[in-house]
Amino acid sequence: MSTPARDIISEVGTSKAAARIRLAAIDIFAAKGYGASTTREIAARLGLSAGGVYPHYKTKESLLFAISLEGHDAALAAITTADQPGAQPADRLASTITAYVKWHAHNHALARVVQYELRSLSPEHFRAIAAIRRATSGVFENIIEAGESAGSFRTIDTEAATLAITSLAIDVSRWFPSNTYADPEVLAKRYAELALRIVGSTN
Amino acid sequence: MSTPARDIISEVGTSKAAARIRLAAIDIFAAKGYGASTTREIAARLGLSAGGVYPHYKTKESLLFAISLEGHDAALAAITTADQPGAQPADRLASTITAYVKWHAHNHALARVVQYELRSLSPEHFRAIAAIRRATSGVFENIIEAGESAGSFRTIDTEAATLAITSLAIDVSRWFPSNTYADPEVLAKRYAELALRIVGSTN
Repeated sequence: MSTPARDIISEVGTSKAAARIRLAAIDIFAAKGYGASTTREIAARLGLSAGGVYPHYKTKESLLFAISLEGHDAALAAITTADQPGAQPADRLASTITAYVKWHAHNHALARVVQYELRSLSPEHFRAIAAIRRATSGVFENIIEAGESAGSFRTIDTEAATLAITSLAIDVSRWFPSNTYADPEVLAKRYAELALRIVGSTN
Repeated sequence: MSTPARDIISEVGTSKAAARIRLAAIDIFAAKGYGASTTREIAARLGLSAGGVYPHYKTKESLLFAISLEGHDAALAAITTADQPGAQPADRLASTITAYVKWHAHNHALARVVQYELRSLSPEHFRAIAAIRRATSGVFENIIEAGESAGSFRTIDTEAATLAITSLAIDVSRWFPSNTYADPEVLAKRYAELALRIVGSTN
């Protein structure tokens, strides 16, 4: 997979130790918020000394960036894997939104960090993540446009439909699980049905 | 207006000084996150000494609760004011979702605080806010049920439709404004159209 962020992939630790640090950081950032968390706490969670994170991530921000890059890449990969460009637009939309909702439900702690802590990234890192976000919206937008061209979708406004569909899935990470919806499969099925209504699918 | 939180209204400062403190706190909480903010910073923003917040709010959490209570009450008031119980369900849904989206767009900093920082409330305070949230969802759910009974809505699942419609509006506070949507009126109009599709309005 190639994204505009690849040129700074070298900033993302690829070792097992770095991966353990990211997992601990996701837990702590999701529970307390990025701003209230310290690398010292993250190190302590892993039984490391206060300086134990430094060889892998020089700053807390570089750790947030690594998590954001990994998370956004994974969400994009989930929908590109689910997409079947040769299929009918309604089937394509259903399978991609199902994958996107399930990703946000299964990975709700990670998703909260990568969706709600963007303001804390450096401008350069923010631009790299913004490019992946545009690519993600682009997958849905292309499917919606394909459905419009084929006459199988009757959208009111392509941009609003794309925004609403991605927004619904992202917001899952805020509240999931709830008393009513605790099964990602059930929720994803319902939201796929609603996404087809949003685009005015005639199937 | 009466909500289940009224019995603890006494914890919410009603003076002008308390209102100024809440406004400064909303700015700081929205920018940095609640966990990373201090009452010292909030006081400094207003030119007060470190202890200047204490006479009004004994703890940072009581300040968050006051903001959450005020914000949730205001959002609920916006939709109950917009609702016209004697009107057609489609008109009722359009006017309430329009008001709810506009509230989240106009008050996006406040909305981010009250929607995303709930985890930091004490259990008692959380329960008070949860009651207002249930009342808010209840307004939409009642309208959707009225539409179903009248045969003017064909929902797939009332709970999923209620969740999706409220979720769309809440998520506005995460991203608003964007390059494409910076006018609350334009966004609210589009989302009202999409909400009618979500419930399968036959009008």
